[in-house]
Amino acid sequence: MISKQQVVQAYLPAVLAARDEAEAFAPSNIALCKYWGKRDAELNLPINASLSVSLAHLGSRTRLTPAGDDTDRVWLNGTEQAPDSAFSRKLLAFVELFRAGRALPVHVHTRNNIPTAAGLASSASGFAALTLALDQWLDLQLEPAVLSAFARMGSGSASRSLFEGFVQWDDGVRDDGMDSHGVRLAASWPALRIGLVKVATGEKAVDSRAGMKRTIETAHLYQSWPLQAAADLTRLHQAIDTKDFALLGQTAEQNALSMHATMIASWPPLLYWTPDSVAAMQQVWALRQQGLEVYFTMDAGPNLKLLFEADDQAQVEQAFPGIEVVAPFRA
Amino acid sequence: MISKQQVVQAYLPAVLAARDEAEAFAPSNIALCKYWGKRDAELNLPINASLSVSLAHLGSRTRLTPAGDDTDRVWLNGTEQAPDSAFSRKLLAFVELFRAGRALPVHVHTRNNIPTAAGLASSASGFAALTLALDQWLDLQLEPAVLSAFARMGSGSASRSLFEGFVQWDDGVRDDGMDSHGVRLAASWPALRIGLVKVATGEKAVDSRAGMKRTIETAHLYQSWPLQAAADLTRLHQAIDTKDFALLGQTAEQNALSMHATMIASWPPLLYWTPDSVAAMQQVWALRQQGLEVYFTMDAGPNLKLLFEADDQAQVEQAFPGIEVVAPFRA
Repeated sequence: MISKQQVVQAYLPAVLAARDEAEAFAPSNIALCKYWGKRDAELNLPINASLSVSLAHLGSRTRLTPAGDDTDRVWLNGTEQAPDSAFSRKLLAFVELFRAGRALPVHVHTRNNIPTAAGLASSASGFAALTLALDQWLDLQLEPAVLSAFARMGSGSASRSLFEGFVQWDDGVRDDGMDSHGVRLAASWPALRIGLVKVATGEKAVDSRAGMKRTIETAHLYQSWPLQAAADLTRLHQAIDTKDFALLGQTAEQNALSMHATMIASWPPLLYWTPDSVAAMQQVWALRQQGLEVYFTMDAGPNLKLLFEADDQAQVEQAFPGIEVVAPFRA
Repeated sequence: MISKQQVVQAYLPAVLAARDEAEAFAPSNIALCKYWGKRDAELNLPINASLSVSLAHLGSRTRLTPAGDDTDRVWLNGTEQAPDSAFSRKLLAFVELFRAGRALPVHVHTRNNIPTAAGLASSASGFAALTLALDQWLDLQLEPAVLSAFARMGSGSASRSLFEGFVQWDDGVRDDGMDSHGVRLAASWPALRIGLVKVATGEKAVDSRAGMKRTIETAHLYQSWPLQAAADLTRLHQAIDTKDFALLGQTAEQNALSMHATMIASWPPLLYWTPDSVAAMQQVWALRQQGLEVYFTMDAGPNLKLLFEADDQAQVEQAFPGIEVVAPFRA
């Protein structure tokens, strides 16, 4: 098995020098075809390819500066994080892949402008922004595809947050995973809107990594998940190419529900939905019955992300007061 | 394709005479491994074998008498049903399989003592009781296995309601379906209890027949359902043979959730759960976390059926006030 360290080292120069400052932003992303299941847990290599849309201005901004006090320190949204916190340790372990023992102590300031309680994971945009910032800080000048593959090793879906717009994360075939990275699609869809419904706060009961593992090990239905994902990927490309919004929405909603179905079929059962999630789903279905073209997707959590087009925004906002609406393609 | 009529005719004598009266009872049943998907929609032949436990005294009682007024008439719980109602038409079409055009007008009185709002389909016990009553009324003296196969053609799960206790409904391989019938297991489990949680009333949005069809046609995940069902059937036999209640409960709960998962993965999505269903599931999981051995199963509806043992009945009733508790094996 290849380690993350081995993968990154192959791309680094013999001598590394840190700049005085580097700063980068990366957007959050919403998968329309989900990543669910790893074929390599060390490198976060997926069982299936996935496809997302990035959330424009919503995401993470990360700044790196050499540590004047010779001590690695991490701030999140202005608050210093304990060195032994899971957040600091995971982040600094990722930085260490690039430093590889060299004395380059760093101060990391990261800020997320993702609305709280909207159920958007900040790990995708966070590791993408950190990877971009490291590339600048150490003057690596690596290709976006390489940086996307690196970000993937921090958090799988971070590979998609390297890019704006529609992004496909290829599953790839290589053992080192360097062909498993995000690829931006050329297509744009200015009328596309994403509505973030705030269903619930609170920590997830089971994190995605553990959830995927349990699903693969215990749910017979998971065996058919790659078939569903492959079919959905084809349909999403068709929907994007022809601007067929109903096809886009249907495919994204069925894909999300199929992913949740594999969790529900696991043992012990993995149900990320709350009663409020079910009520919100039923509301979406009732709106569609009334002729409104609105669909939803959900990640491994209780929140719904609505998909609709600009013309229907007023009606959707009336049905779901307080949602945050994002236009992924700033027309 | 073989018709129901052809199947039944092969077992009838040349001359039929009706007795003055016939009456039979058949219990409702709860599947621990579910029937979901037909390989023959005319004969209700299943894609997978299933296994249930019958609900002792809860079920349907049906009485047949020659019609003094020469007119077929149907009463349900004492109320006469319109001749063109779905209930009357389905029931009399089943009677006609046996009369096959002979002038034997009948009055049918059927009563269900199944608690309302508990989400128990009355079609299983109803068609089983009707089949038993027809066997008596026409003095057919057929084997229980043959009657079970006939009842299956009225409603698939009726094949299991011909028997008490644990019943396996074999999928069979014959085109006429006569090897696809219920078989009673010898095992008894006097401590087993079933708690009927009353979550919701109201008609189902999508009936089981249409639900199965949609699932098979649109859910990729359904392709793995027969694998799950086969594995669960093996585990249920092991649980029953060794009186391993945790294994019984886990298997039944995962099986039910896997069936619902295939519906959730369909398009349009088939979600029989209400917010209250999710709240009740979460309550069961919380009770298990506290050490109480209680599990649930669900059919194509929002209601939960709890599985537990006699020693835990008081605690389960405290957590779920108002449940109706059934002891399937009257010890």
